[in-house]
Amino acid sequence: MDLELVTIGTELLLGHTIDTNGAEIARRLAVLGVRVVRRTSVADDPAAIRDAVAAGLARTRAVLTTGGLGPTRDDITKQVVAELYDWPLAFDDTVWAAVLERYRRFGRTPVESNRSQAEVPEGAIVLLNRWGTAPGLWLEGTPGLAIMLPGVPLEMRMLLEHEVEPRLAARGGGAVIRSRTVRTTGIPESTLAERLGEIEAAIGPATLAYLPGVEGVDLRVTAWNQPADAVDVRLAAAVAELRARAGEFVYGEDADDLSRAVVDRARAAHCRLAVAESCTGGLLGARLTDTPGSSAVMIGGVIAYDNAVKTGLLSVPSTMIETCGAVSEETAGAMAEGVRRLLTADLAISLTGIAGPDGGSADKPVGTVCFGLASARGTETRRAVFGGSRSEIRARAAQAALWQLYRALPAGDE
Amino acid sequence: MDLELVTIGTELLLGHTIDTNGAEIARRLAVLGVRVVRRTSVADDPAAIRDAVAAGLARTRAVLTTGGLGPTRDDITKQVVAELYDWPLAFDDTVWAAVLERYRRFGRTPVESNRSQAEVPEGAIVLLNRWGTAPGLWLEGTPGLAIMLPGVPLEMRMLLEHEVEPRLAARGGGAVIRSRTVRTTGIPESTLAERLGEIEAAIGPATLAYLPGVEGVDLRVTAWNQPADAVDVRLAAAVAELRARAGEFVYGEDADDLSRAVVDRARAAHCRLAVAESCTGGLLGARLTDTPGSSAVMIGGVIAYDNAVKTGLLSVPSTMIETCGAVSEETAGAMAEGVRRLLTADLAISLTGIAGPDGGSADKPVGTVCFGLASARGTETRRAVFGGSRSEIRARAAQAALWQLYRALPAGDE
Repeated sequence: MDLELVTIGTELLLGHTIDTNGAEIARRLAVLGVRVVRRTSVADDPAAIRDAVAAGLARTRAVLTTGGLGPTRDDITKQVVAELYDWPLAFDDTVWAAVLERYRRFGRTPVESNRSQAEVPEGAIVLLNRWGTAPGLWLEGTPGLAIMLPGVPLEMRMLLEHEVEPRLAARGGGAVIRSRTVRTTGIPESTLAERLGEIEAAIGPATLAYLPGVEGVDLRVTAWNQPADAVDVRLAAAVAELRARAGEFVYGEDADDLSRAVVDRARAAHCRLAVAESCTGGLLGARLTDTPGSSAVMIGGVIAYDNAVKTGLLSVPSTMIETCGAVSEETAGAMAEGVRRLLTADLAISLTGIAGPDGGSADKPVGTVCFGLASARGTETRRAVFGGSRSEIRARAAQAALWQLYRALPAGDE
Repeated sequence: MDLELVTIGTELLLGHTIDTNGAEIARRLAVLGVRVVRRTSVADDPAAIRDAVAAGLARTRAVLTTGGLGPTRDDITKQVVAELYDWPLAFDDTVWAAVLERYRRFGRTPVESNRSQAEVPEGAIVLLNRWGTAPGLWLEGTPGLAIMLPGVPLEMRMLLEHEVEPRLAARGGGAVIRSRTVRTTGIPESTLAERLGEIEAAIGPATLAYLPGVEGVDLRVTAWNQPADAVDVRLAAAVAELRARAGEFVYGEDADDLSRAVVDRARAAHCRLAVAESCTGGLLGARLTDTPGSSAVMIGGVIAYDNAVKTGLLSVPSTMIETCGAVSEETAGAMAEGVRRLLTADLAISLTGIAGPDGGSADKPVGTVCFGLASARGTETRRAVFGGSRSEIRARAAQAALWQLYRALPAGDE
């Protein structure tokens, strides 16, 4: 089943409000095999709402709207959609009783404008809203199916779960849309695409999308309108193929985080970690400790922003900083060794770099970051150049550091 | 000028990616008096892209697209839009040279699929992309104006700012939509609303929105379709009124960050900072150093995740941790004093708390965070409880620590 989403609200077009409802609805409906084929946002304007809903009904015969059902004067969706069905609005006593009851519970008195919330199109099924005052509506008739939900995220979510999803599931034939994601890092999108080659044929009819971000490139494979009992097997085969081709650049799937993967490996190996951060100023430590349970492996670290902390607490020789520079593989190596000794860690990693916007040179441009990795087996260093803004360079550097920790730890039997 | 936004990407319809580009573009174009009247998201599907762009051009004669310009094979927007103008694609040597130069700079070799990025519709103005490889395009012809930008947020933003906005401003007629934001922290939304009172009358016809988040509550005031020469005066008066009523809870305006405000005050006071972090694991240091120029005041810090780091490096007495607990005002105070001594800082702040999801108790529930602030004047401590997920608790705790640093520093003549 295909469906179009129409989100209504002037605030969505001004850009001060990010439309998270749309993403959530799409994700939840996919589980039921309902494919959102278009999303449209329009202002609280009758002509624009009518046009978007009517065009969606004409294309797919199914539209879900959010917003435009509250008591304030810019809420006009209900009238406009009722006109498309040629159904007049009528006052509904059950809805009004529910509105009154809700106000009583919060110790408030409804005002005149609230009465309009009890008006519903004749022929519509009322989706009673126990989490707010504006009911949802389910209209099924000549133009097709129109589902109308309030725009308040909690009310939308609750009505979707309790009233809409069961009705849609009852209509569906058992086909579902399901996605899985293979997460990669340390390899640019185009190089990864070359490596994967003509993979569409191998994973078809599932489709593949490349999703690049500061944490790497995610590969999302989607199976469309498959029988529920076959879809998991098919997706598992596609994921296995992607993993085989992407090889060592894969660190996890779906909601896996590289920090979680590092913590899991370190815990299995009884390996305790420490960090020494210059350009990231604590971001790597924050990433590692964002994972619940990280206290089992994370000892802590030193934010060595000023060179005096590098030479003092981390015992980097001053002559090394003078000769090689604070951003150098030599300094990075000494920082990692220093923090490993200081905190008695098994494995320590360091970063020192130029996050910008200033401080770059021809030899060491903005985005240059040096890493040191120290363990009982010795110390390794590397240097990389990251693109983007100051924030993006720092985020990419922290992710690259996690990637080095991950590869330095034994794989275990994940 | 009215314009429609078309964001392209199957991932936007699956709901795995939240469309933040759309909001940012709408916000920025409003400043130029360009009103986004509709937003549409479609899949990487030629027919759907063609339909959405053609319908938008028919309605408003101006469409801006994002996405579908990268090197991987799901990128087809350029061909589809070029067909609407009846302009064939041609290989552009200047674009190819820029792609090659970018790869060279990052020490990589372009692959065959990158060549397609240098193909542009004949008649289009190329918007050279110095932040990525896919150029933007500006097509102006019989169907109207089509502006095509890549979907990667940084590249979209940079092309919008450097290439699109100047061209749109040159076409504009003078009326603008403009917003300003007053940023507050340390006060809940409802208390702030009580404090502001009946402010709508005082700032009208500008409108006010409350925007709560982990950094506090932002107050956004918007003036609609005002002459460009009057709007700034009107908004400045509204902002002054908001600042007067919100009082000491205001730390800045618009894109101001509390980290920036702390760095500015510390720099003016020649006051050097250090941090000691337990539950935030480096997040406070990361916030402080995300501000360019923070190296002038930020010495560094200690991530004291394990209690051994608190007692060892920071000299917190073991008996104190045994008696009062690692999460206590006593321990927080000793951590701040310890890091201040260790790094010879003027002002030091510490955090120790329970970020959850486990580890809470009746006495110290999840979200409990203790802070210590040490200076030559002595040590202050406080305790707070924050709501939300682990990530939100950590983010709120880091913001509260910045707020304490801000108030501890002299105000100067900001």
